[in-house]
Amino acid sequence: MRAVDIIIKKRDGNKLTEKEIDFMVKGYTSGDIPDYQMSSFLMAIYFKGMDDYETSFLTKSMLNSGDILDLSSIDGIKVDKHSTGGVGDKTSLVVAPIVASLGIKVAKMSGRGLGHTGGTIDKLESIPGYNTNLDEKDFINQVNKIGIALIGPTKSLAPADKKMYALRDVTGTVSSIPLIASSIMSKKLAAGTDIIVLDVKVGKGAFMKNVNDAKELARLMVQIGKNMNKKVVAILTNMNDPLGYAVGNNLEVIEAINTLNGKGPKDFNDLCINASAELIYEAGLTNNIDDAIKLAVRQIENKEALNKFIELVKAQNGDESYIINPDKFEKAKYIIPVISNEEGYVKSIDALSIGIASMKLGAGREKLEDKINYNVGIIINKKPGDKVNKNDILAYIHSDFKNVCEINDMIINAYEFSNTKIEYNLILDIVK
Amino acid sequence: MRAVDIIIKKRDGNKLTEKEIDFMVKGYTSGDIPDYQMSSFLMAIYFKGMDDYETSFLTKSMLNSGDILDLSSIDGIKVDKHSTGGVGDKTSLVVAPIVASLGIKVAKMSGRGLGHTGGTIDKLESIPGYNTNLDEKDFINQVNKIGIALIGPTKSLAPADKKMYALRDVTGTVSSIPLIASSIMSKKLAAGTDIIVLDVKVGKGAFMKNVNDAKELARLMVQIGKNMNKKVVAILTNMNDPLGYAVGNNLEVIEAINTLNGKGPKDFNDLCINASAELIYEAGLTNNIDDAIKLAVRQIENKEALNKFIELVKAQNGDESYIINPDKFEKAKYIIPVISNEEGYVKSIDALSIGIASMKLGAGREKLEDKINYNVGIIINKKPGDKVNKNDILAYIHSDFKNVCEINDMIINAYEFSNTKIEYNLILDIVK
Repeated sequence: MRAVDIIIKKRDGNKLTEKEIDFMVKGYTSGDIPDYQMSSFLMAIYFKGMDDYETSFLTKSMLNSGDILDLSSIDGIKVDKHSTGGVGDKTSLVVAPIVASLGIKVAKMSGRGLGHTGGTIDKLESIPGYNTNLDEKDFINQVNKIGIALIGPTKSLAPADKKMYALRDVTGTVSSIPLIASSIMSKKLAAGTDIIVLDVKVGKGAFMKNVNDAKELARLMVQIGKNMNKKVVAILTNMNDPLGYAVGNNLEVIEAINTLNGKGPKDFNDLCINASAELIYEAGLTNNIDDAIKLAVRQIENKEALNKFIELVKAQNGDESYIINPDKFEKAKYIIPVISNEEGYVKSIDALSIGIASMKLGAGREKLEDKINYNVGIIINKKPGDKVNKNDILAYIHSDFKNVCEINDMIINAYEFSNTKIEYNLILDIVK
Repeated sequence: MRAVDIIIKKRDGNKLTEKEIDFMVKGYTSGDIPDYQMSSFLMAIYFKGMDDYETSFLTKSMLNSGDILDLSSIDGIKVDKHSTGGVGDKTSLVVAPIVASLGIKVAKMSGRGLGHTGGTIDKLESIPGYNTNLDEKDFINQVNKIGIALIGPTKSLAPADKKMYALRDVTGTVSSIPLIASSIMSKKLAAGTDIIVLDVKVGKGAFMKNVNDAKELARLMVQIGKNMNKKVVAILTNMNDPLGYAVGNNLEVIEAINTLNGKGPKDFNDLCINASAELIYEAGLTNNIDDAIKLAVRQIENKEALNKFIELVKAQNGDESYIINPDKFEKAKYIIPVISNEEGYVKSIDALSIGIASMKLGAGREKLEDKINYNVGIIINKKPGDKVNKNDILAYIHSDFKNVCEINDMIINAYEFSNTKIEYNLILDIVK
């Protein structure tokens, strides 16, 4: 078997066998196949695609390139939740405690943010003391003890994906649906849970810019899950606009706490309830989704979800007094209102611009090695559908520096107005 | 400027500017742009193509990546001839002396053979003593003195092409028309002549498998030449079947000598006359092609072309007695007839199979570093259109080993028969 023949086979639009795909992935991971062959192979996949079988084989090869977490010592049903990345997306911080408070085991590893999107691990680390670095044993012990653990990646999960993703990033081969699907699924399958809920973001602030591509990505990931005997549900959600009001690390944690207190933004709260309901239903706690939704709502109303979150923070060495009293979180030095010079109904708020503005404030990373500032970010004041008059406050900039002229302009430019109130649709589809 | 943005721009089907193309070529040649970015860039070009301007810019960048031969100290019109590579293609050995014998200056650098195709330099080196390694000064002096020199590459001509071609070979990006065109033209333009005749082979034994692709390649190369103020003529010729009777190094030299003696195979002789005529006409020696053809025929009839070849061999230290008496060439140890087990008219002889069979006999190289055997090869006995009876001899295997069973089968399988005599068309088109 020669790499160049496999490249040419894909280039010419032919289907690859499991062996051929495994040869490429194994060879690349071991270093036998050089970067330049993998990159032309990835570009050929970009143009010629992969069918469901090929994508499943690719996922399997990447999955098997490293460790696979063994969660068998955890009793009960283990679940995971993954978002393809958005702006203001703190959903895991609410969904995980809701379902864990019902006895579903949440053994979740999250990543860090990059570019305009935030990461769950960064947000958790904005809670003083919270330790995201548990080893595998402590991770499993904690899930067995309190039903939930949210940590950073412990082991070498899917190293092939890591190497391939770094290559895709510099060779123009990121935006390929089979490559995105296999990348996400290899990591999620390596994390060893029984049920996975995927939040597939679509819109200006997401990887997937249009609904059809997002639907195809969702369908493909669910299919890969089925081929690997895992339950996978994909929720397609709108990421044209930021989710909720808060963008920035501790600002988002505070919004998650508010939501667990029953005072969350409508769009964000809806998503949390629906994502939780999918996990509750798939875990077999209810016979239908409506009952699962009711159960999720109840866990917020009765504060059990909030208490589970407090338990989680405490278990991972975080200072739970911050969760009980979010006013304790350190504030940015300056809180500067963004004033509207237009009037009308908010039509949309470009999530990408808001994400980049937040990154520029220091809440996100341009490069992986950048340090982030937990206290800064943006609080949206006017959401899509809201009426705005001239000189109304559109948003608040939370900054550690005074000179926010550029940020202010980015936020103003992110707003689009219309004369009539538009309907806002957060959940676009559910694929399972 | 970032390489990844240029890759994405091409991937998305956009036209690149001269600056962007030059950035990629220069960066790659200097090592600033790594192999893996160039290979995904090449694959993007494979799929999205390049227009005439982009291809000319690419050619220009590769041309300017190294030395450009300065032939200004040679008086008169300097010409070059290039074949895209075929089986039994010894055309340069006849065309060069024909036109040189008319006072047109032939300053030609040739390459070595690889895979199933032979190279002019290997054929010349099968003449005892012939030295293909002249330095630039001696090369120019010889052209000034006797009007002709045929040598291997002396200088670092188009090093970007060399590096890119090596990469294309292992990344499935060889068969792209703009990449082939710019590769050939960058080298030919670096060789500094005024007029270039390109023999674009098409068919089973050629790079270009179908006429439309070959026509596009021809059109593009002629256009690049025009953009660089050079006269370029492309002759499209049939390479489904081997050219002439002889395949193998000294066997082909002998056939070239026979042709210069007026006893060449019809197809091969026709091509030599027509290619010579294009150069004669473009050099301004005649007012029309018909007169140019007559002139070329005359130079064979009056032996002036043969004498020019003898002069060439002598000038480059070759033993001219081999040219005067080709029986002196060393023969292979065994000459084994291939017997037909079918009857009918020869419809075609798969040139690729014959080329590979010849390579397996030792006449060609599988890898660049392989040594070749000058004495071995294949002599076709029955050509397309010939009537064959059972037990007739199809071909002769010239081998230094006895066990030619596999070669025999390859040759038998290369023959296709039909019940009726088919017309054979060698020259398919002329583009200028």
